[in-house]
Amino acid sequence: MKEIKKYLSEILSRFSEIGSNGDGKGYTRLGYSDVEDQMHKCFLDYAKEYGLNTYTDKVGNSYVYIKEHEKYDYIGSHLDSVIKGGQFDGPLGVAVGLSILLYIKENNLDIPLKVIAFRNEESTNFLYATIGSKLITGKLDLETFNRLKSLNGEKLSDIFKEKSLNPNTEIISDIKSFMEIHIEQSRVLESENKSIGIITTIAGSCRLIVTINGVAEHSGATPMDFRHDALCAASEIILKVEEIGNNETETSVGTVGYIKNSPNSLNVIPGKTTFSIDFRDIYVDSMKRMREKAKSVVAEVAKRRDLEYEIEEFKITPSVELYKKGIEDLESIAKEENISYKIMHSGPSHDAMTLTDICNTNMLFIPCENGISHNPNENIDIDDAVVGADLILKYLEKINRKN
Amino acid sequence: MKEIKKYLSEILSRFSEIGSNGDGKGYTRLGYSDVEDQMHKCFLDYAKEYGLNTYTDKVGNSYVYIKEHEKYDYIGSHLDSVIKGGQFDGPLGVAVGLSILLYIKENNLDIPLKVIAFRNEESTNFLYATIGSKLITGKLDLETFNRLKSLNGEKLSDIFKEKSLNPNTEIISDIKSFMEIHIEQSRVLESENKSIGIITTIAGSCRLIVTINGVAEHSGATPMDFRHDALCAASEIILKVEEIGNNETETSVGTVGYIKNSPNSLNVIPGKTTFSIDFRDIYVDSMKRMREKAKSVVAEVAKRRDLEYEIEEFKITPSVELYKKGIEDLESIAKEENISYKIMHSGPSHDAMTLTDICNTNMLFIPCENGISHNPNENIDIDDAVVGADLILKYLEKINRKN
Repeated sequence: MKEIKKYLSEILSRFSEIGSNGDGKGYTRLGYSDVEDQMHKCFLDYAKEYGLNTYTDKVGNSYVYIKEHEKYDYIGSHLDSVIKGGQFDGPLGVAVGLSILLYIKENNLDIPLKVIAFRNEESTNFLYATIGSKLITGKLDLETFNRLKSLNGEKLSDIFKEKSLNPNTEIISDIKSFMEIHIEQSRVLESENKSIGIITTIAGSCRLIVTINGVAEHSGATPMDFRHDALCAASEIILKVEEIGNNETETSVGTVGYIKNSPNSLNVIPGKTTFSIDFRDIYVDSMKRMREKAKSVVAEVAKRRDLEYEIEEFKITPSVELYKKGIEDLESIAKEENISYKIMHSGPSHDAMTLTDICNTNMLFIPCENGISHNPNENIDIDDAVVGADLILKYLEKINRKN
Repeated sequence: MKEIKKYLSEILSRFSEIGSNGDGKGYTRLGYSDVEDQMHKCFLDYAKEYGLNTYTDKVGNSYVYIKEHEKYDYIGSHLDSVIKGGQFDGPLGVAVGLSILLYIKENNLDIPLKVIAFRNEESTNFLYATIGSKLITGKLDLETFNRLKSLNGEKLSDIFKEKSLNPNTEIISDIKSFMEIHIEQSRVLESENKSIGIITTIAGSCRLIVTINGVAEHSGATPMDFRHDALCAASEIILKVEEIGNNETETSVGTVGYIKNSPNSLNVIPGKTTFSIDFRDIYVDSMKRMREKAKSVVAEVAKRRDLEYEIEEFKITPSVELYKKGIEDLESIAKEENISYKIMHSGPSHDAMTLTDICNTNMLFIPCENGISHNPNENIDIDDAVVGADLILKYLEKINRKN
């Protein structure tokens, strides 16, 4: 599989030139930003150099294929990142897909593969995840779309106009299977010395945006018992979210990753504090319970401190089961090929989640160093990615064998 | 006193055109920013139109006077603001000073008055207060100066170079008294229906900048018990600061007004959180005790959560007593003039604090609507300012009366 490793290294090296914050400071490639545009252009340009066909859909996702077929097996992932993230979360899956496609072309294999790079998988820029894959699977309604705003306060609908994109798009119809390969983003595979995780279930998520409205007043002049401090209220709620995530189930987590405080001056009592709540679990009921607990806490704290509040609720993304026959086939190939693998679930959500009701969907993990991701220190062993590509290629050959 | 009201309205109206965030959104005039430059230019230009002499010192403070004297009575305040602040906190004192100076000129009174507009009184931009007045009274050492950075990350020393300023300056020597008139920034005068507060003591402040270093990891993939969440640690400390400020003395306050969270993404566990602590009281011992308590809390929380931390400590600004004879004179004039006044202390710090060891220093407050300041809704009754100007003018006449 020397060719795949060569392609893979070449593509990852091209991507690594885009969106860097400087040595050791990671990558910032926000969804629907100009930097994400550059990543997609890089992907398509590389494919064109090798004589592949390319196009972009109405919502900005990029596609690469060899020749026309009625239906395709898809491999894909995303090209955006969090702020100061790593270079493998997303781009790895696109690079593996493209490497396999080039290998198929070079060796004239009869596999109808298409590689897709989705837009905006991370929830960083719009506090909303997997926008590109949700739009082409009918999972993002226009009302929700229209209220999405970037970290800079720009409406996603305005960004779409600027980039000549259109959220009113058809559901993808030329797809018969979807495969995503991704870094694990935790320490399980590394600690058990496995090269590959074969995923059974992807945990769901439940997100809220909370805004506390207090009164911005002078920190020196206002006695403690006159205050309506939005940040103190937020701090109480942040600690409760941690407690709820800790106690709900063995797999539940609760995180406040984003906070915006206003006016955010040393000598002004915070008048307005906005923050995100991210609950995840493989059980939908657990997420519902966590959401209700959090809402009660917000109401209780706001009442006790005489503050106003708003809660923006997003639809719960339920956990999903992946394609059973695919899991079995991947496992049997892994055994034949002596690949060290683990059958496991995914804590993070991924673009693959949006495809499960459209086509047979599977997912693989490879280990990442110390389990670290969403961080400049994110790293992989490229040989694990090559093992993954080998497994996917054998799986594609198997499902496309004319017997 | 029709003339003073006319001047005052005119000057405040000129200032109101600078640094506005739009209707109802207040003013942002950060210290040593281009907007603050415009405020100083506006002040000097207005004075020149009326034939006054003007100059700027090495650190950017602006001065206006009628003619040469050996020593001057000074009136002054600042022209910068917090983010989304009001238009009276600072500029009011400069405008009252300038109005009195113009009245003196028009009426050929024998009072050697100089009006000064200080640079950067608010701690907003550099997390450090009263920079302009501290520099010309020898209270800001070069080491501290050199570590000051703006909210944009620019070093104050670099900003000084760009603006051709120089922190190595002489201590002001032509000053025999200093008077500052300022809005109260609380509700005491309003609730007691007084036009003027005559200030006896200005409370001190004690400031810390705390940084908590955790590990930025994926919020979906990282189990709760693997986490090193910097924002959760910060939240615990923020609530303790509130508790400490609440419990120390009757006049003590504790505030976290500023927080910066990184990478600040919905789906990333906070890896680094920096925040300010602002303790104030009229007792230095109380501030010292609050500081030690806060440092213990930071250490305890960081140890329990297995996090690293740094604490940047700033020198305690002690509370100061104002000039006793001045307070007595101001009170006796207020009585003669039937002004409704209150003898009181100041919770907020002011430029006047830095002058007390240089010359006889006094301070007056006027009420502000609902006690609100550092907020777009900050408002005053201009007639209170005119009463204050009248009192100051009578006081200046008294202290300059020959025999």
